[in-house]
Amino acid sequence: MGIIVQKYGGTSVGSPERIINVAERIIATKNKGNSVITVVSAMGDSTDELLDLAAQITRNPSSREMDMLLATGEQVSISLLSMAIKEKGYEVVSLTGAQAGIYTDTVHKKAKITRIDNTRLKREIEAGKIVIVAGFQGKTEGGEITTLGRGGSDTTAVAVAAAVKADVCEIYTDVDGVYTADPRIVPNASKLDFVSYDEMLELASLGALVLQTRAVEYAKQHKVRVAVKSSFNNNEGTIVEEGSAMERVRLVSGVAHDLNVAKITIYGVPDVPGIAGSLFRALADNNINVDMIVQSNPRGTINDISFTVSQEEQKKAVQVVEKIKEEVNAEGINTRDKLAKISIVGAGMQSNPGVAATMFEALANAGINIELISTSEIKVSCIVDAANAKDAVKIIHDKFKLGDKNK
Amino acid sequence: MGIIVQKYGGTSVGSPERIINVAERIIATKNKGNSVITVVSAMGDSTDELLDLAAQITRNPSSREMDMLLATGEQVSISLLSMAIKEKGYEVVSLTGAQAGIYTDTVHKKAKITRIDNTRLKREIEAGKIVIVAGFQGKTEGGEITTLGRGGSDTTAVAVAAAVKADVCEIYTDVDGVYTADPRIVPNASKLDFVSYDEMLELASLGALVLQTRAVEYAKQHKVRVAVKSSFNNNEGTIVEEGSAMERVRLVSGVAHDLNVAKITIYGVPDVPGIAGSLFRALADNNINVDMIVQSNPRGTINDISFTVSQEEQKKAVQVVEKIKEEVNAEGINTRDKLAKISIVGAGMQSNPGVAATMFEALANAGINIELISTSEIKVSCIVDAANAKDAVKIIHDKFKLGDKNK
Repeated sequence: MGIIVQKYGGTSVGSPERIINVAERIIATKNKGNSVITVVSAMGDSTDELLDLAAQITRNPSSREMDMLLATGEQVSISLLSMAIKEKGYEVVSLTGAQAGIYTDTVHKKAKITRIDNTRLKREIEAGKIVIVAGFQGKTEGGEITTLGRGGSDTTAVAVAAAVKADVCEIYTDVDGVYTADPRIVPNASKLDFVSYDEMLELASLGALVLQTRAVEYAKQHKVRVAVKSSFNNNEGTIVEEGSAMERVRLVSGVAHDLNVAKITIYGVPDVPGIAGSLFRALADNNINVDMIVQSNPRGTINDISFTVSQEEQKKAVQVVEKIKEEVNAEGINTRDKLAKISIVGAGMQSNPGVAATMFEALANAGINIELISTSEIKVSCIVDAANAKDAVKIIHDKFKLGDKNK
Repeated sequence: MGIIVQKYGGTSVGSPERIINVAERIIATKNKGNSVITVVSAMGDSTDELLDLAAQITRNPSSREMDMLLATGEQVSISLLSMAIKEKGYEVVSLTGAQAGIYTDTVHKKAKITRIDNTRLKREIEAGKIVIVAGFQGKTEGGEITTLGRGGSDTTAVAVAAAVKADVCEIYTDVDGVYTADPRIVPNASKLDFVSYDEMLELASLGALVLQTRAVEYAKQHKVRVAVKSSFNNNEGTIVEEGSAMERVRLVSGVAHDLNVAKITIYGVPDVPGIAGSLFRALADNNINVDMIVQSNPRGTINDISFTVSQEEQKKAVQVVEKIKEEVNAEGINTRDKLAKISIVGAGMQSNPGVAATMFEALANAGINIELISTSEIKVSCIVDAANAKDAVKIIHDKFKLGDKNK
């Protein structure tokens, strides 16, 4: 007996049959005595169809009008899902983001939720109704329709869960939880029963994209317990919650990888304050997403700065760096593509020295060269040749005995 | 220099190409120095596609959820049309019914506009923007999304025109105005330069469906000047406005016809108060739309009551009348289908006796028998055999010299 917030993605509601299937899952949860609020995305390809219509009209659509257009996708799926639930004899109400009281800032196409007025949500829950909320969208204080950007439905679900103090926020996806590595690469990868918010953040940003990073950040901030589950079975899934002391015994939770990495190095940069700042400001101004940044000072007075970007952004990034190189009179630029990032993530490693060393040794024993290393409190990342990436994941997964752990 | 409200239907915005075409027409109006507010319907078949999706989920969709679903249709077209206008370098903003301040009652699927808060509309117009408003929809005072029922976009346009005190409300359709008769039947039918609200109401309900009846009623009430025009050419169209004294010289404005008529007569009804009331209440309770009603009292103490319905509703209507017949102990029931209604409409006829007689004589001279007659101040309707309908229209159109008038 409590409040459960669920979120189903576009694939789960991709057809009338699947919508009816989701309706049955929602009703099963309701019948266990819970209040249920379900957040849904737009049906399957409908967002792409809307984008295609817009592309036939303009190459530079206004962000405001794009939000007006895209927000219809979820409005269609919430109304259909509500009809399916009502058809089975249950009281239900669908709410657009605006109606659900989801307020955002005014940055169209990638708005951030600023607050939730939970009046309507609470009223409908207290009236005993199942509530279906349009994910991915909200409104500004001025009444404009905004969208949160792709994947924003996860964030909607977590924010709604926080606003109604839900017992759990269940995110339904096409995998049944978070694994110690990609099962397509490591066949004996095992499902984690729980991960901490921080571990999930590191895993998410490294390619284990079962849960949007922003949603995890929001969950962490508001202490929302999240369950990642499959919409195709009834397995337990993975719980994401505040790390307990117990979890510290687990040194490494998982091995993540990203196969789309390019590296750029500007070397022989005079050691003057402000150069790194202007370099990464220039990259940001050009909308280039920088991942790892490593600066070293091998010769005392001059710096080498390396950073990674996705391979698609490599060319643009090099152009930006060329200009900076002239301005600061650096010696030169190197760049490489077809690289991969292999990372180990684990809340336990911060109090256990030697975890990073174990990873480096495992790679060295396999003859895999490391191009760059970057570490955080709960993560160690190595850049290696993409050709070696899968071997590297397997070797590290074995080294930390992750495949055995949950068996 | 003034405010012009335009309305384009679903066919006019049925594809990206047509949307771009409508954008150009709007811009041309703007470039003449006008402020422009354009109301649009959903793209072509999109409403039917949404209905089909719902039909795959339930046979009894909730009205509220149906409105939630259908309102997305116009939201798509307003955003795309706004993108097309912006692409050509003009400032534009799209508004959902809710954002445009269109408030309705709470009757989902056939809501009525109760008021328009014109704050936002005025602000955008004063900022010099072209405003694109979603037709057919509004919101309740409680923030629920409602639709006005099919064809409601005409009403939206007229209501918006009233709210901003527009100079004219232009309704774009696939014909270029209101004609003296259906040009497919009467080749020399002529376009009327103007009709009064009342004439338009009578013509609209008789099958000249270029403008929704509710929209004309609203226009009459708020004295909104309406122009019916074609979206495929630049012809002048027909102006619908308050009848001037001048128009009285025109005895008959047009000849309308309806080929789908069935007649039902209950005869030998005791002349007791309340029988007509209970008869038509029973028909209304069964959702049967009754058109003409004629009651006569040929033998002093007993009544004959005849009425017409569409042929589809004939069977159901007869069943209702059978019950009433038993209850009131009437003598019997007659019914006939394959009938047609031919009507002449003209604001001038109310002060000119003999117009009806001229119509009856014309039919008699052609050997066409009249089954029923009904008259109002500006209309005379005759029920005839459907096989004679087209001849009847031509004969009457010639008799009143309507084909010559505007040539």
